[in-house]
Amino acid sequence: MVAAQDGPRITMTSIAREAGVSVPTVSRVLNGRSDVAPDTRERVEELLRRHGYRRRVNRTQEPAGLIDLVFNDLDSPWAVEIIRGVEDVGHAACVGTVVSAIHRRPTATRQWLRNVQARNTDGVILVTSDVQSPLHAELRRINVPTVVVDPAGVPGHEVPTVGAANWSGALAATEHLISLGHRRIGFIAGPRTLVCSRTRLDGYRAALEASEIAVDPQLIVQGDFYHESGFKGAAELLSLANAPTAIFASSDQMALGGYEAVRQRGLRVPDDLSIIGFDDLPEVRWSSPPLTTVRQPLSDMGALAARTLLRLAGGERIESLRFELPTQLVVRDSTGPLKV
Amino acid sequence: MVAAQDGPRITMTSIAREAGVSVPTVSRVLNGRSDVAPDTRERVEELLRRHGYRRRVNRTQEPAGLIDLVFNDLDSPWAVEIIRGVEDVGHAACVGTVVSAIHRRPTATRQWLRNVQARNTDGVILVTSDVQSPLHAELRRINVPTVVVDPAGVPGHEVPTVGAANWSGALAATEHLISLGHRRIGFIAGPRTLVCSRTRLDGYRAALEASEIAVDPQLIVQGDFYHESGFKGAAELLSLANAPTAIFASSDQMALGGYEAVRQRGLRVPDDLSIIGFDDLPEVRWSSPPLTTVRQPLSDMGALAARTLLRLAGGERIESLRFELPTQLVVRDSTGPLKV
Repeated sequence: MVAAQDGPRITMTSIAREAGVSVPTVSRVLNGRSDVAPDTRERVEELLRRHGYRRRVNRTQEPAGLIDLVFNDLDSPWAVEIIRGVEDVGHAACVGTVVSAIHRRPTATRQWLRNVQARNTDGVILVTSDVQSPLHAELRRINVPTVVVDPAGVPGHEVPTVGAANWSGALAATEHLISLGHRRIGFIAGPRTLVCSRTRLDGYRAALEASEIAVDPQLIVQGDFYHESGFKGAAELLSLANAPTAIFASSDQMALGGYEAVRQRGLRVPDDLSIIGFDDLPEVRWSSPPLTTVRQPLSDMGALAARTLLRLAGGERIESLRFELPTQLVVRDSTGPLKV
Repeated sequence: MVAAQDGPRITMTSIAREAGVSVPTVSRVLNGRSDVAPDTRERVEELLRRHGYRRRVNRTQEPAGLIDLVFNDLDSPWAVEIIRGVEDVGHAACVGTVVSAIHRRPTATRQWLRNVQARNTDGVILVTSDVQSPLHAELRRINVPTVVVDPAGVPGHEVPTVGAANWSGALAATEHLISLGHRRIGFIAGPRTLVCSRTRLDGYRAALEASEIAVDPQLIVQGDFYHESGFKGAAELLSLANAPTAIFASSDQMALGGYEAVRQRGLRVPDDLSIIGFDDLPEVRWSSPPLTTVRQPLSDMGALAARTLLRLAGGERIESLRFELPTQLVVRDSTGPLKV
């Protein structure tokens, strides 16, 4: 259940009465204070959760709203894209965007949770592909509305998730190469643990099969979305006896790694090898040649997550738990016709 | 004056008494409310400013601190670097980092100022090179501590500024090319209006003069730090009768534009032309070949700005108004020895 604001109004007083504790005790639980007995805390939290209690803002001055946007690390070139989308929507709603990185460290995560409670945030946008994260459970426990921006496409969250159409994007990328006459098309896969990696691989396979091109397992190599793995994967593919004439790298970084493998062999993109990526990071317009790729609308995903969060924070029910935004083929100069 | 917390304690009550108004009126002025007569507002603000009044945090629950980090636009690849540096320091101090973009639009700026007042921020880090910005005056007026992160190196702020050593970075870049045997070294300049552009040009000139290489005005072309201008500038230099054998582009984006000009001529970096950039954005490690460049420590600059701001917010005086962090030559594969 995403939001519950129906029925009689739930107040700290009504929760206190039902739990058989004082109102200040409920307040202490809500504020994450440690001076509450564990079983009391548990009982109060269970009631807060069950009734979908939403804390009233009670600062003594007019509050400006805040939403928290949380990354595992701020090392990703697409982080700024998501920040831009969230900030745009927040700005229009007079809500500030607090950006944090939790570095997958439990201490940093605990600290961040305390801060989120203390600053009375309207809600949290998690940018993560870690389904196991205890964060989800913690945020539910303290009753903070949450939305996940999830370019990796992990399903099964109990919170609204905003992702991109990985399968159809991969299909379009592969069809583009086929339309240029390529038949030997290599694929550099993303991490096995991520659903989006498998979805992109499935899109690649589907396009080949639709054109009655046999899927050659030799042409599928493992990567991890980072540059180095694209470099190695492309080098491996280029050293095959029957090497591919085109490569679909399932991330932009891996595609640029492919550029470097081609360059080090004294070859050229796209004359000797066509390369297509996935993401359309702003930087790939500046690659040489400019990269053909599949656009994930990262700033739109951030904006949709922020709008969804503000609706949740306002007590609305959200009709869909999984939003999927379309991807788009962006043809630039790294793909060309098969030379015969 | 940067901070003033000496003397008897200044409170809303003492300000109200001196201004001859009620305490709620002072509060309304502090909260940016519009229901205060203009001359009353002016009198109260003048007193707040003169006494260096720092608003006490008076939310009903334990507050987590907030600092505001403001960009003109969130379209820059280096934004995330600065965010990371600020967030690291903020996190350690249990202070949240609110990221905003004001798009140089007056309405967005006014809205943002109202939000800053309402959320009772501890202070503001501006990432901007616009000295004329009315923001500085506004932030002084409402008495919010401010630090400027200023990769462009604009002097003359009345607030603490964190920049990078542009001159010595440009000197090192040019010396590197000279040490590889190059004598015809092109320079693609940044926008004329920015001091850092001129400083980098001066570093280039100084290195040439130190090696008794005449500065050839033909080899200096105008750019604007963006990719397209680097592409055009490099194309212009390559079409000279006596073309350069190396180019120093004073931003990474322009250097990558140079790559594309070289590629479109069927030439190669660094075999036919050495190229060096300036910035060391994370992405240039993935350029092909990996770019030799001058590192601006953007995340360190963000971190220093945040530490400085927290000191200011704590009432400390800051001993220097201009912090300059060192730059560093990073040699990768886009520069090579002169071919004879």
